[in-house]
Amino acid sequence: MNTSTRTERPPSSGKVWLVGAGPGDAELLTLKAARVLAQCTVWLVDDLVGRDILDLAQPGTKIIEVGKRGGCASTPQNFILRLMARYAREGHAVARVKGGDPFIFGRAGEEMTWLKERRIDVEGISGITAGLAVASALGLPLTHREVSRGVTLVTAHTVDDSRPDWSSLARSGLTIVCYMGMSQPDMLQAELLAAGFPATLPVAIAAQVSCAAQRHAVTTLTHLAATVQARHMTSPAVIILGEVVRHAQALPQQDADGVDSLAMAI
Amino acid sequence: MNTSTRTERPPSSGKVWLVGAGPGDAELLTLKAARVLAQCTVWLVDDLVGRDILDLAQPGTKIIEVGKRGGCASTPQNFILRLMARYAREGHAVARVKGGDPFIFGRAGEEMTWLKERRIDVEGISGITAGLAVASALGLPLTHREVSRGVTLVTAHTVDDSRPDWSSLARSGLTIVCYMGMSQPDMLQAELLAAGFPATLPVAIAAQVSCAAQRHAVTTLTHLAATVQARHMTSPAVIILGEVVRHAQALPQQDADGVDSLAMAI
Repeated sequence: MNTSTRTERPPSSGKVWLVGAGPGDAELLTLKAARVLAQCTVWLVDDLVGRDILDLAQPGTKIIEVGKRGGCASTPQNFILRLMARYAREGHAVARVKGGDPFIFGRAGEEMTWLKERRIDVEGISGITAGLAVASALGLPLTHREVSRGVTLVTAHTVDDSRPDWSSLARSGLTIVCYMGMSQPDMLQAELLAAGFPATLPVAIAAQVSCAAQRHAVTTLTHLAATVQARHMTSPAVIILGEVVRHAQALPQQDADGVDSLAMAI
Repeated sequence: MNTSTRTERPPSSGKVWLVGAGPGDAELLTLKAARVLAQCTVWLVDDLVGRDILDLAQPGTKIIEVGKRGGCASTPQNFILRLMARYAREGHAVARVKGGDPFIFGRAGEEMTWLKERRIDVEGISGITAGLAVASALGLPLTHREVSRGVTLVTAHTVDDSRPDWSSLARSGLTIVCYMGMSQPDMLQAELLAAGFPATLPVAIAAQVSCAAQRHAVTTLTHLAATVQARHMTSPAVIILGEVVRHAQALPQQDADGVDSLAMAI
């Protein structure tokens, strides 16, 4: 493909691709995501997307940053929707580039419905969500025939301030991967203990999963909040709760704070 | 890289890679998986791995099929473990190529532990598991701010004939993605109804997700078993239970059997 065709608009009407960019490491993109991104002439890029991924853009691609990180100033969702529609109607192949997987906590459902209602073609591409990437990053199996026959991915924090039914999840006996749990770890710990999760339950916390800046810690539920604070861990991060944590192959980071009791036990 | 170097043994001691090959479509491999597979000189290939993926093997690669499909004749797990160890000790980069994600129902925990105990270097690479690939395949968001704040991936069938705690999962209100539920769909349906899942709960069934042979149906829980039987759907397949199914963008397949009542409703 030469430079002139690279910047040509597609001849047909446009299309929006909701592209899962994975947890951060550009190598965790799928081949399909990489191929489609190289073909898209407009990218709307979430701020959880790894910066190396921008290297996949062809010359002439219009890159628009539309960060939506919780609690910070972000581009309003309606504005992003209108941008997608505008560029697609102009004939562009538009990539809405999202951290992780667009179908897991990624608003793909809302965005697809909105675009379909306006007769704009839309397709999603799965990505490796952080809650699954943590498994390869820590050598941590999320299921294990002897200890957990399944895994639940769930958000701790939502805009309406509601809570998951933690008691049911405790009774399920499955591995829990908790997203958006870093803003109030002390409250999360208290809720989980009150719901029946045992104080000695193994817990792994992993921030910036798969990135050069990845940090992780292994502890027990009763030390969850203290570990987050002592290690100065921040979003984006996932918290894994369950006996599978004992099977993690990656050694925990050095513990300077004395809170990582499980690190001694496993 | 020329042909002579392609078939050379790595100079250092070997290593085992547990590679997630995704749900079937070779384009759903990660860039990392594709790169590592091209470097591995021995592949042990699961029978749920898409056949197109074998094209990534360099000339001279030793390809060994080690199928383990449930209920059929398969290579014993101990034999696979010994093969991995043998080739790694000979200095090979060994790929254990698994359908989906090795850390989700993929025995990665057991295999990593076994190899580490024998001081054999091992690393896993995440893949798109079928239960998440179904989202892009059907345009079906697994979470949705208005109807489900999380998703549980769980196996219906296990060797020891135990069951998930379906009652807890029903109470959780989260989306359920059920693997290995196709052998006895009538029993699964009865168990789910007894556990408190409503008869009218929307259900999607998707077989051979992302492959050319993909088939899917949308129905309600009370018609789950009848739909599986009428459509002659077989493993490998995933069953998605939850209100999110109403948000699927892909139209259900034509219903020749009159069982797909939800297809009319959504």
